[in-house]
Amino acid sequence: MKVIGVTRDDDGPQLLERERPSPDPGEALVRTLRVGVDGTDHEVLNGSHGGFPDGADHMVLGHEAVGVVEEPNGTGLEAGQVVVPTVRRKPNGETNEYFRRGEPDMAPDGEYTERGIVGDHGFMAEYFTSPADFLVPVPESVAEYGFLVEPLSITEKANEHAYATREPFDWRPEAACVLGNGSLGLLTLWMLEQEYDRTYCVGRRDRPDPTVDIIDEIGSTYVDSRETPVDELPDAYEAMDYIYEATGFAPHAFQTVKALDQNGVGVLLGIPEPWEFEVDGGSLHNEIVLHNKCLIGTVNSHVSHFEDAVETLQELPEWLLDDLITTVTDPEHVEAAFEDGDDQIKAVVEFDSL
Amino acid sequence: MKVIGVTRDDDGPQLLERERPSPDPGEALVRTLRVGVDGTDHEVLNGSHGGFPDGADHMVLGHEAVGVVEEPNGTGLEAGQVVVPTVRRKPNGETNEYFRRGEPDMAPDGEYTERGIVGDHGFMAEYFTSPADFLVPVPESVAEYGFLVEPLSITEKANEHAYATREPFDWRPEAACVLGNGSLGLLTLWMLEQEYDRTYCVGRRDRPDPTVDIIDEIGSTYVDSRETPVDELPDAYEAMDYIYEATGFAPHAFQTVKALDQNGVGVLLGIPEPWEFEVDGGSLHNEIVLHNKCLIGTVNSHVSHFEDAVETLQELPEWLLDDLITTVTDPEHVEAAFEDGDDQIKAVVEFDSL
Repeated sequence: MKVIGVTRDDDGPQLLERERPSPDPGEALVRTLRVGVDGTDHEVLNGSHGGFPDGADHMVLGHEAVGVVEEPNGTGLEAGQVVVPTVRRKPNGETNEYFRRGEPDMAPDGEYTERGIVGDHGFMAEYFTSPADFLVPVPESVAEYGFLVEPLSITEKANEHAYATREPFDWRPEAACVLGNGSLGLLTLWMLEQEYDRTYCVGRRDRPDPTVDIIDEIGSTYVDSRETPVDELPDAYEAMDYIYEATGFAPHAFQTVKALDQNGVGVLLGIPEPWEFEVDGGSLHNEIVLHNKCLIGTVNSHVSHFEDAVETLQELPEWLLDDLITTVTDPEHVEAAFEDGDDQIKAVVEFDSL
Repeated sequence: MKVIGVTRDDDGPQLLERERPSPDPGEALVRTLRVGVDGTDHEVLNGSHGGFPDGADHMVLGHEAVGVVEEPNGTGLEAGQVVVPTVRRKPNGETNEYFRRGEPDMAPDGEYTERGIVGDHGFMAEYFTSPADFLVPVPESVAEYGFLVEPLSITEKANEHAYATREPFDWRPEAACVLGNGSLGLLTLWMLEQEYDRTYCVGRRDRPDPTVDIIDEIGSTYVDSRETPVDELPDAYEAMDYIYEATGFAPHAFQTVKALDQNGVGVLLGIPEPWEFEVDGGSLHNEIVLHNKCLIGTVNSHVSHFEDAVETLQELPEWLLDDLITTVTDPEHVEAAFEDGDDQIKAVVEFDSL
């Protein structure tokens, strides 16, 4: 079967031939429909994140997949059922407390692999196998967009964890801001716009730009961080109750503290490289304390977040899906899905259709 | 009546004469028993925190009080009842959403005053008045130590807010660390030792030292930060699930991120001055995200935290109270309560007894 992988000799996506896998007991065989590409895939390609499976000379890419159950293999799934796979797996198939609790997203390094990212082959293949417990059903009506369930699940977890920090008091947030206008930022912005009175999205693009068009259409305010740095948001617009950081630009984590209103929370999702710089650590510390602020990091997501994401996916408007998905390509022309120009928002590799 | 105040001309505590106050409707008159001294009082004296009541040429000090209801004044309290006052009050008596919700601790600047700290006279006086809603009953059996309810309430709030951040998953903490060996740090250390398998307390003192003796007696491990900086805790001892920062030393906020175990939370309580320094912001950001860490700040506390603190106070062992309280002085010798040597842990000004 055809797979898209990365080899040790090359940092671009490669079309490779690989044997169709057979499901082990407890696993189903899934026929892949579509697999999305995100920033993590680019980081995997350039070697800044993740790592190959032990001893492998290549890794199959892709962690945002949707497919159809081809062989249920006695797992309780049904042939023809549309499913989305979660990403983390037991290392060498050996379970641990985090997997037992259904919270592999909270497992430390070494207690998980991530399909298509670290230590395990991904889903960019005509077929893949997965334990049925890691396959989340998706209605057929949204099968085409099922590859967005994984990124949406990241935000479901981020929101859940961020909002939990505000549970001990009567929080009445009005203004939210997304840092980053990539596909995850834009999906999150739409979600936040449904909840908040006012939303903002920070990017570094000149108009006209397709992501800024989406920000406008969502009804959110676009902020160009070249003109208004994140820590000047309160003066230029307003202090934010919630900030969702999806840039991986390390100074944003610190600027977020100043951009938050009293009692606000900032959730960090970016994964920057080491970078030393100067901060006014005294004022930051003081500000976090005297105004009851919170900075929280989250990574990955688990089944209940995928289930929440399936609900959210069904609410996304058609225009947003149309505008967001800028490239649909077959495996033979996979390079198009990894092009990274300003016109690219979300690319997807299509292996098959329902 | 005698009061201890600070004037605009002097930065030491002054014994002053002032008229005994009369309770307004809704207020009770309280005869003061004891008022504790903490770091905030020292900051108020040296002018680095808080501010005088509008137009006043002095401010009565003290925000950690216990007293006896002298005149219930129709408030539903009973004469002779032991009470502890909370600290925040409505500015100019005008309410706002935070006071209506019973959460003045979450109010922003300008929407509260703090008795003895900012904009309102404190409790270091033979008598004080207070709205009855801000007077929390305390059993007579612990009246002598009732001035510890306010500091304990700070930790009740900090723990509540910090633990809420870990609610979305199955958190199984084992190791906790308190940064700071002042009286609040030691009280908190005792509280954490009841919950955690292993606790640590970070200070900068040579043995023999009375605070280190208390750390030993609690059964906790003393860490000298001159030998083991906070960010080296994981290598020297272990990564911490919970870190409670009570030093106001700004680098501790950043070192806390590295000292936490995966999925750990650090609560910040110190109030440092502005201070620029270099951090590896990229690694800190990365570490917060990839290991689901959280930094949360909390300030002040509200009635339910005081009520929880009354419960905690009744559990504190006699030896800890004896060792913690190093100075009990009458108002005429108040300087003794503001001496700040290594032998001083907790000082209290005694106005009267039951």
